[in-house]
Amino acid sequence: MDLWFSEDHHDGWELSIRVDRVLATEHSQYQRIDILQTRDFGVMLVLDGKVQACQMDEFIYHEMLVHVPMLCHPEPRRVLVAGGGDGGSMREVMGHPSVEVGYLVDIDQRVIALCQEFMPGLAGPLVGEKRLVTVARDAAEQLRESQNLDVILVDSSDPEGPSERLFGCDFYDILKAALRPDGVVALQAGSPFFYREQIARTVADLRERFAVVRPYQIPMPTYPSGYWTLVLASDVLDPVQFSPEVLAQRLEERGIRPRYYTPEIHHGALALPPFLADAIRSHEAVQA
Amino acid sequence: MDLWFSEDHHDGWELSIRVDRVLATEHSQYQRIDILQTRDFGVMLVLDGKVQACQMDEFIYHEMLVHVPMLCHPEPRRVLVAGGGDGGSMREVMGHPSVEVGYLVDIDQRVIALCQEFMPGLAGPLVGEKRLVTVARDAAEQLRESQNLDVILVDSSDPEGPSERLFGCDFYDILKAALRPDGVVALQAGSPFFYREQIARTVADLRERFAVVRPYQIPMPTYPSGYWTLVLASDVLDPVQFSPEVLAQRLEERGIRPRYYTPEIHHGALALPPFLADAIRSHEAVQA
Repeated sequence: MDLWFSEDHHDGWELSIRVDRVLATEHSQYQRIDILQTRDFGVMLVLDGKVQACQMDEFIYHEMLVHVPMLCHPEPRRVLVAGGGDGGSMREVMGHPSVEVGYLVDIDQRVIALCQEFMPGLAGPLVGEKRLVTVARDAAEQLRESQNLDVILVDSSDPEGPSERLFGCDFYDILKAALRPDGVVALQAGSPFFYREQIARTVADLRERFAVVRPYQIPMPTYPSGYWTLVLASDVLDPVQFSPEVLAQRLEERGIRPRYYTPEIHHGALALPPFLADAIRSHEAVQA
Repeated sequence: MDLWFSEDHHDGWELSIRVDRVLATEHSQYQRIDILQTRDFGVMLVLDGKVQACQMDEFIYHEMLVHVPMLCHPEPRRVLVAGGGDGGSMREVMGHPSVEVGYLVDIDQRVIALCQEFMPGLAGPLVGEKRLVTVARDAAEQLRESQNLDVILVDSSDPEGPSERLFGCDFYDILKAALRPDGVVALQAGSPFFYREQIARTVADLRERFAVVRPYQIPMPTYPSGYWTLVLASDVLDPVQFSPEVLAQRLEERGIRPRYYTPEIHHGALALPPFLADAIRSHEAVQA
């Protein structure tokens, strides 16, 4: 059988990936969950028809979402991942030995359970992890009752569906209130080609709340356009201020050996291309 | 009518782009040429079914192929583009005022002609350009008779089809012989996910011939995996040795205002992720 998964990312853009076998399909309370064994790219998690994590390239997204903020923090102890039920972000968080507690807060318990079963590369290292607290709940609600977090990582799906509440000003207010004054957050903001307006708005909204807001870019083959933007925000930690030497020393001290992240890539990712920087500036000019 | 172009990049990976209109379709002496008006991403050149240049993102590839080597050169005068019939690379070359002659050597005259007609954003700036010499010929043959070039940019299609001769040791020997001792070359080497072996082999083959060989990476949405590798080679010019300040000064002096390239992105692109650096090292270890 010739089986293909297709994601209609954008009006005129569609990525298709060949599938050997559908490992699981469920309609949870919140969304449709599919776990696919692809022919060439490993196991893939799909929520409401959109690729969330594929074994081939998930390490790029998860390492860059987690290590860019966490290596800026001298001693991250209390970390919360909002969304991220596949476990990939939390796997990277737990690589930092100073972490005392990691809250994995995904609204959909079934995503967590299915990924533990079918994507051991992501959620596997979390099995038996004593520092992990898994909470099946809307992350905005959980964050409203949280405080003193050192790092918050928003590993959401797109703004439609169950992750809708993980975008926008109300949510950024909640983030800020849950974070320690010297804390740092990172979140995903979309493709520089397809969601430029969303990226610009996210940056602008965060700049009203945080002294330091730094968008950064990664290649990410299985996400729309293969090219994605993340954003870091903090009141005190500025990722461009950390020299490659300091970052390399922290990697070494913490015993982290990434497959994509390096201190030089950290800085390269934070250097925005003019076409994207201009879009962000234009948005700000219109708002001002 | 619901019209889609699909490129079967790789066994289990297919990108489809919605098309409003087919602007031109020809079978030239060398290949099938299609120029498509896409719904959302501008005009796109397709050779033998593979995307070569799309208005949306072509600037990333062309700027990075051209400016990374050319900004390392203090005064590039004689430049040759092998392939690149769409004109995008030569457009960037001509932005460097020191260029006295730019040879655009594409085996297929029809690609050049059709792109001049339908992709004015790429080939348009070349119309009436007195420094341009267009040669409709196999680039390897042309290079065999060339010498004293300051910069050679290999803007080839994939190793199958008419570009086959623009890959491999024989071609790199020809490149080296046509280049001045203080010159620099850059070429495209494929996706870090789909063509890792090809990248590693290209780097290894170039390292036998040049003192400095530096692979670098770019996001490139319309190429397979949205993520691509280029390689620079030279006996004297090392792109990591140029400070962002020097590169910024050269950009300023030459009056170049890129949309993707910046001096910081130059350095970020040259910082390889471990997964790719390891693949290159493993290949070398096997060869040694």
